[in-house]
Amino acid sequence: MNQRDEPRAPVHVSVDVVLLTLVEQQLHAVLLRRAAAPFAGVWALPGGYIHAEEDADAKASAARVLRSKVGIEGAYLEQLATFTGPARDPRGWSVAIAYCALLPVQKLPPEREDINVVAVSELPQLPFDHRSILNAALARVRSKSLYSSLPVHLCGETFTLPQLQQVYENLLGETLNKVSFRRKMDEMDWLEAVPGAMQSGAAHRPAQLYRVKPVFRQELALSPRGL
Amino acid sequence: MNQRDEPRAPVHVSVDVVLLTLVEQQLHAVLLRRAAAPFAGVWALPGGYIHAEEDADAKASAARVLRSKVGIEGAYLEQLATFTGPARDPRGWSVAIAYCALLPVQKLPPEREDINVVAVSELPQLPFDHRSILNAALARVRSKSLYSSLPVHLCGETFTLPQLQQVYENLLGETLNKVSFRRKMDEMDWLEAVPGAMQSGAAHRPAQLYRVKPVFRQELALSPRGL
Repeated sequence: MNQRDEPRAPVHVSVDVVLLTLVEQQLHAVLLRRAAAPFAGVWALPGGYIHAEEDADAKASAARVLRSKVGIEGAYLEQLATFTGPARDPRGWSVAIAYCALLPVQKLPPEREDINVVAVSELPQLPFDHRSILNAALARVRSKSLYSSLPVHLCGETFTLPQLQQVYENLLGETLNKVSFRRKMDEMDWLEAVPGAMQSGAAHRPAQLYRVKPVFRQELALSPRGL
Repeated sequence: MNQRDEPRAPVHVSVDVVLLTLVEQQLHAVLLRRAAAPFAGVWALPGGYIHAEEDADAKASAARVLRSKVGIEGAYLEQLATFTGPARDPRGWSVAIAYCALLPVQKLPPEREDINVVAVSELPQLPFDHRSILNAALARVRSKSLYSSLPVHLCGETFTLPQLQQVYENLLGETLNKVSFRRKMDEMDWLEAVPGAMQSGAAHRPAQLYRVKPVFRQELALSPRGL
């Protein structure tokens, strides 16, 4: 019937993270200057090896990479896809388990010589297949913005509805009808008003501050019919 | 700053496939009896190792597993997710790149002692985290049935619209309005009538046979607003 299936030469496994944030209404990606070969000195996606002795799973590996290499905690993390093959890494056949991470701009790490926060419309050439990985992350974020609460992870802990709508619009690349948007947010029932918390604005009356309901802080709220 | 990131002990990498088919309007999964330890003799998802010397990528590995271990070609294949951690495989920290495969029942392999086609509502206990992987595949198929052409991969090369609607209903677990369904199929514009090909039925007049337009045979057609 079938010949015995033996393990072959080990493949190179990494975890890579597309860390996205909104700066001045434009999506930016956080790049690190690679410390070691291959491509030493080149700007690339943060990434690293699985540490089997300490990582509970690949998501924990991704969180550790963000903590130890970028200096941040608490980003929203979601497995994106796994990129594989002989040509993506000069070291040989490789498996890159890619994650998409979202962080509000207020939580960006302090400036450091080897960290660069770059608008996704202005990226330098990236090594490996990091551009493909990044493009997949952008497509994921944009499509999930159509039917889920994903964009809220680019906001601060609390936000006004106009601020939230602005974030959806930035990700979708189009303006949304304010009344429809608010109705959709009501339907999805994933926000709660922060009691007594208002944000004053120079040009308008104070706006209520909202936050995500606890149940939706780790899991996305979904809207099957979309925005 | 950061200590040098060294590769650690190699992790065990596999490719696993949830191969689904519709039998008598119920989703069935194709299980193989494991030939080798761990869990020798137990029914499990088809899976195998990456053959770096021949596989172009993990998807090609999955296709090769289906061909060499199940005896089938041409299934629709989509990467599902990657399942990782120390506890899923007794051999140690492992990475399972999981694929979802769909096949029309007419293309099932000939019966074989070590192949079992089981209704997903009647699965035996599965080893590793294969039940979690299978559940993820079911969720993916159900949600994609809401807004894409995915279900067509469970149909034969040609099919009538009532047959196609039946498949969507089987996957979604609900009946659909016939007029709305046909309108949605028109809007998505991903089907073409097979010239001159009709299917006769005992109880009704002959129905036009359709097939998927060539451009959508490898890529799904999407319907952003859903069914």
